[in-house]
Amino acid sequence: MIKRLVPGKRLSQATIHGNTVYLAGQVPDDYTGNVEAQAAQVLAKIDALLKDAGTDKTKMLSVTVWLPNMGDFAKFNTVWDAWVPKDAAPARACVEARLADPSIKVEIAVIAAIS
Amino acid sequence: MIKRLVPGKRLSQATIHGNTVYLAGQVPDDYTGNVEAQAAQVLAKIDALLKDAGTDKTKMLSVTVWLPNMGDFAKFNTVWDAWVPKDAAPARACVEARLADPSIKVEIAVIAAIS
Amino acid sequence: MIKRLVPGKRLSQATIHGNTVYLAGQVPDDYTGNVEAQAAQVLAKIDALLKDAGTDKTKMLSVTVWLPNMGDFAKFNTVWDAWVPKDAAPARACVEARLADPSIKVEIAVIAAIS
Repeated sequence: MIKRLVPGKRLSQATIHGNTVYLAGQVPDDYTGNVEAQAAQVLAKIDALLKDAGTDKTKMLSVTVWLPNMGDFAKFNTVWDAWVPKDAAPARACVEARLADPSIKVEIAVIAAIS
Repeated sequence: MIKRLVPGKRLSQATIHGNTVYLAGQVPDDYTGNVEAQAAQVLAKIDALLKDAGTDKTKMLSVTVWLPNMGDFAKFNTVWDAWVPKDAAPARACVEARLADPSIKVEIAVIAAIS
Repeated sequence: MIKRLVPGKRLSQATIHGNTVYLAGQVPDDYTGNVEAQAAQVLAKIDALLKDAGTDKTKMLSVTVWLPNMGDFAKFNTVWDAWVPKDAAPARACVEARLADPSIKVEIAVIAAIS
């Protein structure tokens, strides 16, 4: 009934239930970049997971963004705004939170519909 | 397949998928009030979005509340408790997080069912 | 249309809509323990709520973990890793956030499918 993408012992990168997919909080693979570089990596990982789930960023329903430094809000949004589909933007909340590693500058979780 | 309310380039204020609606994190329009005044504004915006989605606060499923100052918890709850339907309270989590503007004293995201 | 578990005036401990259940943020009953003890209590409460909803931890879709001290991340994961079903781990995000009481060391919210 539930399909899992990249299943692991601690978490799965995505779970699919009916026509909804839930992504785990995505962080960059390379923690050394600035917030723009890390955001680009995170959004690329989201694109790939959504594709594997049989959907894409035009079907996103709800997105939660965590920034450990809210001073990065404008910089993050520059990357986000260029990536998000203009006629299909999801509901979104963006709040400040320290993340699992102090070098991570952005983490994003997504709930999306599956076409 | 997905209906969006108040769609924007960065985010939509709500997305509707099947019989579920996801609201973006709602913040007050006026950042100058105290937490009670800001909470009242946020809850009024939630009422309006839920109405536009064809539902209301008695159908809320899950609510996330972010307070930048957890010292406001009791004050926020005074406003919340007066607003939430007594026999139809949603699941809720309330945690502390700095928000996009340091003057914002509360942000709330909602997932609700549509009748 | 919506079934609620442990309904209260402020929140319900869980809401069921269709074949999805949303749990309120779960905190321990006893705030005096260390993070491992508190995590064990929280996970036991999740088990009990999922059971009451007609499901179990193998059907979890999305989990959000809030730790007020990210320095507890490894300790929390020791308890989590022993509890989470190995072939059925949910999507998960874990971020730092101060919680309603400064003695609470972990809060967890869950979205799960119902069999």
